[in-house]
Amino acid sequence: MNLTHLQVTVVGLGLMGGSLAGALKGRCRAVVGVDRDPQAVLKALEAGFVDRAVGSLAEGVAEADIVVLATPVRAILCLLQEIGPLAKPGALVMDVGSTKRDIVAAMERLPASLEAIGGHPMCGKERSGIAAAEPGLYQGAAFILTPLDRTSPESVSLACSLVHAVGAHPLLLDPERHDRLVARVSHLPYLLSCALVASVADAAHQDQTLWDVAAAGFRDTSRLAASDVTVMLDILQTNRMPVLEALASLQTQLQSLQLALEAGDESRLREALERAWRARVAWAVGKREPR
Amino acid sequence: MNLTHLQVTVVGLGLMGGSLAGALKGRCRAVVGVDRDPQAVLKALEAGFVDRAVGSLAEGVAEADIVVLATPVRAILCLLQEIGPLAKPGALVMDVGSTKRDIVAAMERLPASLEAIGGHPMCGKERSGIAAAEPGLYQGAAFILTPLDRTSPESVSLACSLVHAVGAHPLLLDPERHDRLVARVSHLPYLLSCALVASVADAAHQDQTLWDVAAAGFRDTSRLAASDVTVMLDILQTNRMPVLEALASLQTQLQSLQLALEAGDESRLREALERAWRARVAWAVGKREPR
Repeated sequence: MNLTHLQVTVVGLGLMGGSLAGALKGRCRAVVGVDRDPQAVLKALEAGFVDRAVGSLAEGVAEADIVVLATPVRAILCLLQEIGPLAKPGALVMDVGSTKRDIVAAMERLPASLEAIGGHPMCGKERSGIAAAEPGLYQGAAFILTPLDRTSPESVSLACSLVHAVGAHPLLLDPERHDRLVARVSHLPYLLSCALVASVADAAHQDQTLWDVAAAGFRDTSRLAASDVTVMLDILQTNRMPVLEALASLQTQLQSLQLALEAGDESRLREALERAWRARVAWAVGKREPR
Repeated sequence: MNLTHLQVTVVGLGLMGGSLAGALKGRCRAVVGVDRDPQAVLKALEAGFVDRAVGSLAEGVAEADIVVLATPVRAILCLLQEIGPLAKPGALVMDVGSTKRDIVAAMERLPASLEAIGGHPMCGKERSGIAAAEPGLYQGAAFILTPLDRTSPESVSLACSLVHAVGAHPLLLDPERHDRLVARVSHLPYLLSCALVASVADAAHQDQTLWDVAAAGFRDTSRLAASDVTVMLDILQTNRMPVLEALASLQTQLQSLQLALEAGDESRLREALERAWRARVAWAVGKREPR
């Protein structure tokens, strides 16, 4: 489907929303930004990411054909309670929140006059806010879409067009499956990074030289700990059970490595490390080749 | 001290040795490479990393003023048993192994006619072998030096000159302290990466889509799992107690996050995540600014 005759309104001009608006600009009739923060509105206009930007939700969404909610997850849940009477009948409401079960449940409660679909682009960076936004952010990323029972085929197709327009590729999943998968490959790595940094920070009380010795390995493994805490807290609180399951699985793996190391059981240790090596290398190769 | 009149022999032409040789080439009278693998010898010559390369340890070290052992840790321990009668009296023996206690102990047993100092550059990448080597690898890195009781001030100074020559900066530590520090910021992150990949691989048996959903966060957090297993196994086996202590500390942090999440204790969770955020951001800023 063609977006060139449609107005897209992006609510929340942070890293994800600002980048999305910038990627859509010029590919739609108009890209409108909404943010309560006048600084974000100003910066989105200055960067040329939007055709128009306003502080009022009602004003921003009134004429939109597609509304994309791009705030932290619990703010999306609040917006979904407000937006029903504000959006134009027939408009498609979607989002870019990192957990989907609660958001899709809230979308089910929207007025029947609105279309809705959940979305979650698998891209980002640890810096947040419009200052970190860039229209190329979505390029090459998987963009998960979670249709509702009530989502029409036309709306799925329209959402796919938006995904393609920003350079990403759509991947359709149901919300529960989405939440289980991202708990493993996204939320768990975040908690690991935080635990690693906390452990190093504790040890650094005894010996500050730790921070001087930390190099590229620590940098990459701890990068996610610099993610926006409010965004991540919303994610963890709306995806508790899958994250706790992933955490339990990780702890089992760590204990197994610990036991092999304690026992000096070199062949068991080698087997575990080689298995991880094979899986990681296969994934990296797979990412580079077409599937 | 000036290296221009000295011959440096690098034993082991893999990622670290090949890169070191390439960085020293042209700054010494001669850079000689030693590797049992004829392919590595050939590639080091082709890449122009060495003035001369040989397969024989005896031949390679006979005329060397500085010998740098650049193999996995346990191979360094074997080389230190062999090298005594082969090296020229007065030569400085050093290494680039990632653990220092066992290596420094083996260096203490070298003939009194040889000088010795432990070394560990805080750089590297997950790819290994001479094909991944690059002379710029050491640029800007901390290069830890662990002098022995018997190391002369002149040898410390000579080792510092070599460190500066490859673009790194020396950091003097005793071997036990070194091993405790790198257990926290290097060996622990490696085990975390492996545990993460193993946990994802297990879950992927149920749902292969996990690998498609994995993005930049997983990529960075799991990168170290692609490190050379033989190199890492030597490191873990020669640094068991400090690594086990680091692992225990990490498990405590993970349990604390788990409990806060299970209890839905948002303020405790936020506090832990903000603490990690502050420490990680402060470290990143510190790395960019002069200390």
